[in-house]
Amino acid sequence: MPIFAVTSAQDFVRLVSDLPGVDMLAHDKAVSRQASLTKPAGSLGRLEELAIWLAGWQGKEVPSITKPCCLVFAGNHGVAAQGVSAFPSEVTAQMVSNFKNGGAAINQLARLAGAEFKVIELELDQPTEDFTIAPAMSEAECCAAIQAGADAIPDQADFLLLGEMGIGNTTSAAALAMAIFGGKASEWVGAGTGLDATGLARKVEVVSRAINHHQPEKLSAFECLRTFGGRELAAIVGATLAARHCRIPVMLDGFITTAAAAVMVRVNPFSLDHVMIGHMSAELGHKRLAMELNKRPLLDLDMRLGEASGAVVALMIVQAALATHQGMATFDQAKVSPHD
Amino acid sequence: MPIFAVTSAQDFVRLVSDLPGVDMLAHDKAVSRQASLTKPAGSLGRLEELAIWLAGWQGKEVPSITKPCCLVFAGNHGVAAQGVSAFPSEVTAQMVSNFKNGGAAINQLARLAGAEFKVIELELDQPTEDFTIAPAMSEAECCAAIQAGADAIPDQADFLLLGEMGIGNTTSAAALAMAIFGGKASEWVGAGTGLDATGLARKVEVVSRAINHHQPEKLSAFECLRTFGGRELAAIVGATLAARHCRIPVMLDGFITTAAAAVMVRVNPFSLDHVMIGHMSAELGHKRLAMELNKRPLLDLDMRLGEASGAVVALMIVQAALATHQGMATFDQAKVSPHD
Repeated sequence: MPIFAVTSAQDFVRLVSDLPGVDMLAHDKAVSRQASLTKPAGSLGRLEELAIWLAGWQGKEVPSITKPCCLVFAGNHGVAAQGVSAFPSEVTAQMVSNFKNGGAAINQLARLAGAEFKVIELELDQPTEDFTIAPAMSEAECCAAIQAGADAIPDQADFLLLGEMGIGNTTSAAALAMAIFGGKASEWVGAGTGLDATGLARKVEVVSRAINHHQPEKLSAFECLRTFGGRELAAIVGATLAARHCRIPVMLDGFITTAAAAVMVRVNPFSLDHVMIGHMSAELGHKRLAMELNKRPLLDLDMRLGEASGAVVALMIVQAALATHQGMATFDQAKVSPHD
Repeated sequence: MPIFAVTSAQDFVRLVSDLPGVDMLAHDKAVSRQASLTKPAGSLGRLEELAIWLAGWQGKEVPSITKPCCLVFAGNHGVAAQGVSAFPSEVTAQMVSNFKNGGAAINQLARLAGAEFKVIELELDQPTEDFTIAPAMSEAECCAAIQAGADAIPDQADFLLLGEMGIGNTTSAAALAMAIFGGKASEWVGAGTGLDATGLARKVEVVSRAINHHQPEKLSAFECLRTFGGRELAAIVGATLAARHCRIPVMLDGFITTAAAAVMVRVNPFSLDHVMIGHMSAELGHKRLAMELNKRPLLDLDMRLGEASGAVVALMIVQAALATHQGMATFDQAKVSPHD
C-alpha cells in the first residue's frame, strides 16, 4: 500500500505540515544508557548522538538497523542543453546501466555496508524542460516524481540512504538552493563533475538567468521544486517525506540530495528532524546548504560523486554507533570505577 | 623472529633513520587505475588517496587488507599522582579487564570492522616515574617498551590500528608534544576524560612545571620520549617503527598515539609516510599536532575515547576505499562516455 498519494501542490503542503515526531521516551532512555556505558561521558562524540537519534526515531532504547536501503534516483535535465556539465546527457542512462551491472562506486559501497541497493529511472528519455526558459516540470509531473520517490521505499526498510544520478543536476540543485535561501549564483554553483573555469562561468550565468526569469521570491516551496528541480530531486523529496511518515531515519548523500530535501523546511522547519547528511560534498554550495539546515555532515572526505556514495559510507559510521550502543558493558557490569 | 632489537637510544636513532620507502611503481599504477574507473576524475576524494597510499606501501596496483590488527597498549603513569585525571589509576587495569571480557567500545568496533584485537599490558603495577620530578623511564625501560610495541605485531598482519589506555596519559602526551613542538602548556593540555576547570588548570600547571624542570630543548627525541612518555606511548613508537620496516600501513587513533609517533619525525621527517591519523580528537592539542605532522585525520566525530576507537572506525573508510578501487568498472568496460 502506498504511504501517501500526492497529486497536487496542496497535497504536498498538507503532507509536509503534519508529521509524526520523535519518541522522546525512547530518546531519553538511550541518553541514560549512554551515560552508563564504560567510557568517559560523551567520549564517543557523534557516535552517541547517532545512537540516540536512532533510538528516538525507532522508538527503542536500543535501536538496530536490519534492512538499510539505498535508493538512487536518476533523471535527465533540459538545462543540460546549456552546456553546464563536463559530461553529455547520455551518461545518465549509461551510468544507470553501470549501476545495474554492479560496476559503479555505489555498488561496491552498498555491498560493503550491507545495504540493499535500488536504482529508480525517472523517464530518462523525457528530460525536464530547460528551466532557463520554462519551469522544469508541470505540477502533475512534479507530483508524479514525488510519488515515485515515496513508492520506492521497500517494505520493512528501517534505514534509508538517498542518492541521485543525472547529468546537469548540480545546476538544478544550485538554482533550487538559491531560490530557497537567496544569495548569489556564484555562492551556489560549483564545478560539478569537473567543469573548467569557462564552463563554471557559463554555469553561473545560466543559474543567474534562470533565477531572474522565474523570480523565486514570489514562488512557494513546491513551485521552486517544480521550476528548478529535476525528477530525481522531486523523488528525493518524496522518499524523505514518506520515510518521515513511517518514522524511518534518512541519510542524505551530498549537495543535490540536501538541496532537494531543503524544500521541505520552507514548509515546516521540523520536517528534516529525521534526516542526517552523510558527507560534506566538495561541491561549492554544500557547506552553506548544510549551515542553512543547521546540520553537520558526518563525513568530510572530499567526495563529490553523488550516487548515494557519501550516504552509504556514512552508514558504516551509524553501524559503529549502534555496535557500541548495543554491545558495550556498563560501569556496573564491568566493575569499572566511575568518574571521581 | 623479532623485526628488530632496540637496547639503546643509538639503536632507536639508527632504526628511525634508515627506512624503506613507498613502491612508486605500484603507486603510479594505482593512480592510473583510479583515472580509468567510472566516475569523474577525483570525485571519490580521500577514498582515492587511501587506495593509492595503500597500493604504494603494499607494492600492489590493487591492494587489499586481509588481516587488519588492532593493538591497544596499556600503561600506568606516575604523574597521575598529581591529580591530572578525572578517573583513578586503578581504572587502567579495570579497563584492560573490560577489553579482555569484550565489554569496551573497541571490542564492538573491532568486531564490526573485522579487525583482530589485542591488548598489551605494560607493567601496570609499575607506573612510570612522576615526570614532574624525574624522567618517566630509564633508557632501558623506554627501550623495553619500544621493543614490546614492535614485538606485538602479529604475523601476517597487513594493516595496523594503534591505540592506548592509561589513566594520566593525555598529560604525558601533552608534555611530549610540547617538548617536541614548543608552544605553551595551555595549547596542548585538554580535559582528557573529563576534567573540570579546576582540574584543567592543575593539569596545565603540572605540564608547565615538568617542561621547566627538564628543559626539553636540550633533549634528543629519544630523551623526550623517555622523559615525558609512558610505556604505552613508547610501545606505539615501537609498533609504528616496526610496521614501517615491514611496509605495513598504520592507522593512528587520536591525540596520544599521534603525540607518540611524532617523536619519530624529530629524527626523520619521512618516518611517518606510512601512517594516517584515523580521527581528529576532541582533545585540545590534537588539531595542532596533526598540523605539525601535515596530516589530516580521516574522521572528525568529536570522539575522545582512545582505545584505538577512532582508528578502527577509520578502518571502515579504508575498506570503502579498497572496495571501490578493487571492484569498480572502467569507462571501457561499462561503455560509459568519458569526460568531454
